[in-house]
Amino acid sequence: MFQYLFMKWSLCFLVGLIVSLIGFFNNLAVENIAGLKFEFGWKIVGRSKMAFFVFSASNMILTLFACLITAFIAPAAAGSGIPEVKAYLNGVDAPGILSLRTLFVKVVGSITAVSASLVVGKAGPMVHTGACVASLLSQGGSKKYGLTWKWLRFFKNDRDRRDLVTCGSAAGIAAAFRAPVGGVLFALEEMASWWRSALLWRSFFATAVVAIVLRALIDVCLSGKCGLFGKGGLIMFDVYSANITYHLADIPSVLLLGVMGGILGSFYNFLLEKVLRVYNYINEKGTVYKILLACLISLFTSCLLFGVPWLGTCQPCPPDALEACPTIGRSGNYKKFQCSSGHYNDLASLIFNTNDDAIRNLFSRNTDSEFHASSVLVFFLICCVLSILSYGIVAPVGLFVPVIVTGASYGRFVGMLFGSRPHSSLNHGLYAVLGAASFLGGSMRMTVSLCVILLELTNNLLLLPLIMLVLLISKTVADAFNGNIYDLIMKAKGLPYLEAHAEPYMRQLTVADVLSGPLWTFHGVEKVGTIIHVLRITRHNGFPIVDERSEDDSRVLSGLILRAHLIVLLKRKDAFMSTPVERGGGGAEFSAADFAKRGSGNGDTIDDLQISAEEMEMYVDLRPFTNASPYTVVETMSLAKALVLFRQLGLRHLLVIPKISNVSSLFSCLI
Amino acid sequence: MFQYLFMKWSLCFLVGLIVSLIGFFNNLAVENIAGLKFEFGWKIVGRSKMAFFVFSASNMILTLFACLITAFIAPAAAGSGIPEVKAYLNGVDAPGILSLRTLFVKVVGSITAVSASLVVGKAGPMVHTGACVASLLSQGGSKKYGLTWKWLRFFKNDRDRRDLVTCGSAAGIAAAFRAPVGGVLFALEEMASWWRSALLWRSFFATAVVAIVLRALIDVCLSGKCGLFGKGGLIMFDVYSANITYHLADIPSVLLLGVMGGILGSFYNFLLEKVLRVYNYINEKGTVYKILLACLISLFTSCLLFGVPWLGTCQPCPPDALEACPTIGRSGNYKKFQCSSGHYNDLASLIFNTNDDAIRNLFSRNTDSEFHASSVLVFFLICCVLSILSYGIVAPVGLFVPVIVTGASYGRFVGMLFGSRPHSSLNHGLYAVLGAASFLGGSMRMTVSLCVILLELTNNLLLLPLIMLVLLISKTVADAFNGNIYDLIMKAKGLPYLEAHAEPYMRQLTVADVLSGPLWTFHGVEKVGTIIHVLRITRHNGFPIVDERSEDDSRVLSGLILRAHLIVLLKRKDAFMSTPVERGGGGAEFSAADFAKRGSGNGDTIDDLQISAEEMEMYVDLRPFTNASPYTVVETMSLAKALVLFRQLGLRHLLVIPKISNVSSLFSCLI
Repeated sequence: MFQYLFMKWSLCFLVGLIVSLIGFFNNLAVENIAGLKFEFGWKIVGRSKMAFFVFSASNMILTLFACLITAFIAPAAAGSGIPEVKAYLNGVDAPGILSLRTLFVKVVGSITAVSASLVVGKAGPMVHTGACVASLLSQGGSKKYGLTWKWLRFFKNDRDRRDLVTCGSAAGIAAAFRAPVGGVLFALEEMASWWRSALLWRSFFATAVVAIVLRALIDVCLSGKCGLFGKGGLIMFDVYSANITYHLADIPSVLLLGVMGGILGSFYNFLLEKVLRVYNYINEKGTVYKILLACLISLFTSCLLFGVPWLGTCQPCPPDALEACPTIGRSGNYKKFQCSSGHYNDLASLIFNTNDDAIRNLFSRNTDSEFHASSVLVFFLICCVLSILSYGIVAPVGLFVPVIVTGASYGRFVGMLFGSRPHSSLNHGLYAVLGAASFLGGSMRMTVSLCVILLELTNNLLLLPLIMLVLLISKTVADAFNGNIYDLIMKAKGLPYLEAHAEPYMRQLTVADVLSGPLWTFHGVEKVGTIIHVLRITRHNGFPIVDERSEDDSRVLSGLILRAHLIVLLKRKDAFMSTPVERGGGGAEFSAADFAKRGSGNGDTIDDLQISAEEMEMYVDLRPFTNASPYTVVETMSLAKALVLFRQLGLRHLLVIPKISNVSSLFSCLI
Repeated sequence: MFQYLFMKWSLCFLVGLIVSLIGFFNNLAVENIAGLKFEFGWKIVGRSKMAFFVFSASNMILTLFACLITAFIAPAAAGSGIPEVKAYLNGVDAPGILSLRTLFVKVVGSITAVSASLVVGKAGPMVHTGACVASLLSQGGSKKYGLTWKWLRFFKNDRDRRDLVTCGSAAGIAAAFRAPVGGVLFALEEMASWWRSALLWRSFFATAVVAIVLRALIDVCLSGKCGLFGKGGLIMFDVYSANITYHLADIPSVLLLGVMGGILGSFYNFLLEKVLRVYNYINEKGTVYKILLACLISLFTSCLLFGVPWLGTCQPCPPDALEACPTIGRSGNYKKFQCSSGHYNDLASLIFNTNDDAIRNLFSRNTDSEFHASSVLVFFLICCVLSILSYGIVAPVGLFVPVIVTGASYGRFVGMLFGSRPHSSLNHGLYAVLGAASFLGGSMRMTVSLCVILLELTNNLLLLPLIMLVLLISKTVADAFNGNIYDLIMKAKGLPYLEAHAEPYMRQLTVADVLSGPLWTFHGVEKVGTIIHVLRITRHNGFPIVDERSEDDSRVLSGLILRAHLIVLLKRKDAFMSTPVERGGGGAEFSAADFAKRGSGNGDTIDDLQISAEEMEMYVDLRPFTNASPYTVVETMSLAKALVLFRQLGLRHLLVIPKISNVSSLFSCLI
């Protein structure tokens, strides 16, 4: 018991450690690759035509690389990964989702896709990465590649694995945003279908490890040992360390921002879903089409990013600018882009930056005059279009950062419209923060976790009441139109999901109404041939064990046996007996490790078994391997209540038993 | 349905609004009463003997008032209230805990007790206040005092009331500490036994309202319209707005702080429990003893607070002090207390302040030379002793702030011991914050919620990794010794509590092993006399309805009926029938409102019924009033699994049914 607990905490520690290292490496690689690209494109190749060529070619190569490894090595790594992990935690273990291959492609693909200037994020992939790391650790490594640890055998079951994957997804958000509390809340609010208070503590531990390791690594990098990894390396827009003030007079404009953010967010979801459906259609045609689509998107992105800044205005550099102005190349907020010296192009300053830097620019205060309203509007439209078009490509791309950058530009634009009113004490940067909140609320529909993540990003708790207000409003408004973006993606991907609340029609039905037959049951001592036959003709994963009592011919439920355990029994064969009366399993000895849960999709199937005709006639005593206490409901139980039971307890099987019994009944109330 | 949702949100809004108003009033009153006391004691009465007399007499009067109203009006309001609310949310509805009387005494008593210079907090009482407000609103006011609202009838059931009480306790913490996110997490982690994601959102809404209302009220007060209510009125120790730095070299001392904090915190719990047991013994002797005990504690507190500063050292005022130095009277951090002019007494500066101000002093940075180590140690001991002695008195007193102030002085003392080491980048104020965290972790054993509350109090997210680390360590260390302080108090108060996890021995038992008889069941159509008889001789709250089928003499479970619903049926009498065959309840019509849940302890009991001998012979059809889908388990179900079912679904009754059935079984697996 003590060993188990110690191991569990060690695993959480390892998850935190590995996820933070991956997260840091991720950022380091993106900053360096994207940095080199910009340096090369601008500094070395001076002329704009050549610059465009270098820019779009390098983007194309990076995109192609991300798509190729995804399509050929691990197709499950495409997309954000949050819907898949959410479905896993709801009980749907789709094959390959949490494998080592997926992990590898997710990390490398996410780095290259983000470096390719696509408007995609790396937070979603980090969540999937965290889940993969946790799952691999709890399985004791990947058996396929010979990386296994014997001492992790305790955790080869669904429950411990699910708990650890929850911790892993919390650690993923913590590593992506440096938001440890936000990560825990994200896992609680959005990811987990099943939660208990011990999990709160354990995921908190994992994210604490992430926070501390990241802090130590950044301390190392601040001394300049990380190449082009600069201050902006890890997202943290602590641009509001000064006190901000706001008053009741600001509330109406904030309310309006929230309402519009909700409408726009739900519209964003709507468009994204439509585009995803079109892409699904294209992607089904074959791998070549997938790759072509991605290349097309990359080219379109390059053209748009390079062409649109011509619409921007050249503005004189502010005399009191804290940074160099104008600049060319990667760093610096005032981009020269075709302007005369002493001037900068405001649209280029937003576009020719990583998304992180663009968000930092939009959030920054004391820069109210830096951007024109028209430039911010154009940037908003570009982000909107590109992020919707880019999400569906076959590469590990996230949605979090694109939604934040789109929302921030929306908010800043609204702030500029309101900015001229008297008595407004909110600056444009603050509007950008609130805009990001409203867009996130309208699209992702989380509340507490988004609020805490935004607070941890901006590092200013005084913003709390306003962010809360905006989130509540935008979520409420958006809920009137459609669903959470991850749920929409899950539906588009065909992943089933069991909601926590019952639909109204379920109250009218009993469980007996929804039973489908035929039901296959086994006897406590069953013939091998019968088991093989039933396993072949059905796809059920659990079978009730029902015995007849010889005295009065009544039937008794002994328990439930799982398909996976039956296959282990049939494979080992040493529990086979020649006659049904024999007891004790023919002297066979099994340990719990024999029934350990394998990695997803790695278990044996019925087709792997080799059973001779003679063995078919033998018997096996199933009773020692039966779950003798399955959860049951009476057939007249309302379907809604059965759903609550199923979901709240995280069940996979629920036995329905008949209502009538003729024994001297032993009904009783506990407590 | 829409009306129900709208009402539910409106109620949350009202809870937030009322709780924030009460919280603000609370602070306003404390600041003004305590302020007046100090002004009068020092400024007007110059000499120290007279000052002591005025000080101790005013403390005595305030304490006496708090104790008298508690003892005579609402004894349930004594103590922090958090254990009671926690027990309520676990399913134990002790009488009077959430009544209007309790609310009144809680608010007024808490104000006077805190003003009486006792080392007690007002956060716990705020949680209880929030729960009372929520409960009263969900009941539609107090029937006893004629304050009822008809349109709140939807919420007169256990489930909605429990949800709203959870929101109320979140709002309470939010109002006490201005920590909206911390409040939600506190309700989730510490209070609620039963949680669903909709609740997260709703409690978040309530705390958002609290945050916004408090902010608006403080804006009003900043213009000086609130008497002596100054900057320090609402706890918010935002003393770390500047960037702080810390490095890996600081980790060992932080670890040590956490370990010692855990040991001290659990020792604090141990002492508090022992003292509570002694007090329980004294309090049982009668009201006079209760009052005498409280007066004694008040006198002891006054003597100690007034006597100990003589141990403090007189120090010269720092030439660069930002405040007046030395000062007499209430305000100011440098107290003169018997020192010559130009000097201040460091111990008096800590003691002659409200707890909030003392915490602010201890947390403040750039004051490393303000206090002597010996003074801080003495202050730590005083706080420890006084807070342990004060908690058990018959008045509404909390534990949160005393634990914080004790922990802060402990942390500052440790910081002073470590401070001389080279390479330490942590100042004494930061040590005080971490000390408070370690003491809270060691005593209250929360993690995420305490972390967020401390962050919201100090308003600096950079402290997050260190606070997380300290909390995890101190909780882990303290868990090795004893339990959470609220659980200990609950046990001392005799409140039952159903833990979420099963004890190991439960795995060896089946539910059949723990059934106690005799079980009383009713028929679908039952004789009134039988019902009355059973209700009189038992104290069961639920009864299974079991019918015999005429065809084959088998017994069928039809459902479960509640005692409260039976009493309503028997009281109304119009469902009575003269013969058992009649169907449809004799034309009686009941609406859902008839069965609405009353306020705790206000329902009718069996003794209130007047049934004539003739009516005793009549029949009543119970079937329309039965819960036809009660949750059931088979008798061979493991006790541990049944406990999980009971607790996770928040059940009050669980039916145990026999295993054997002779019907052609309709077993099946859902999904």
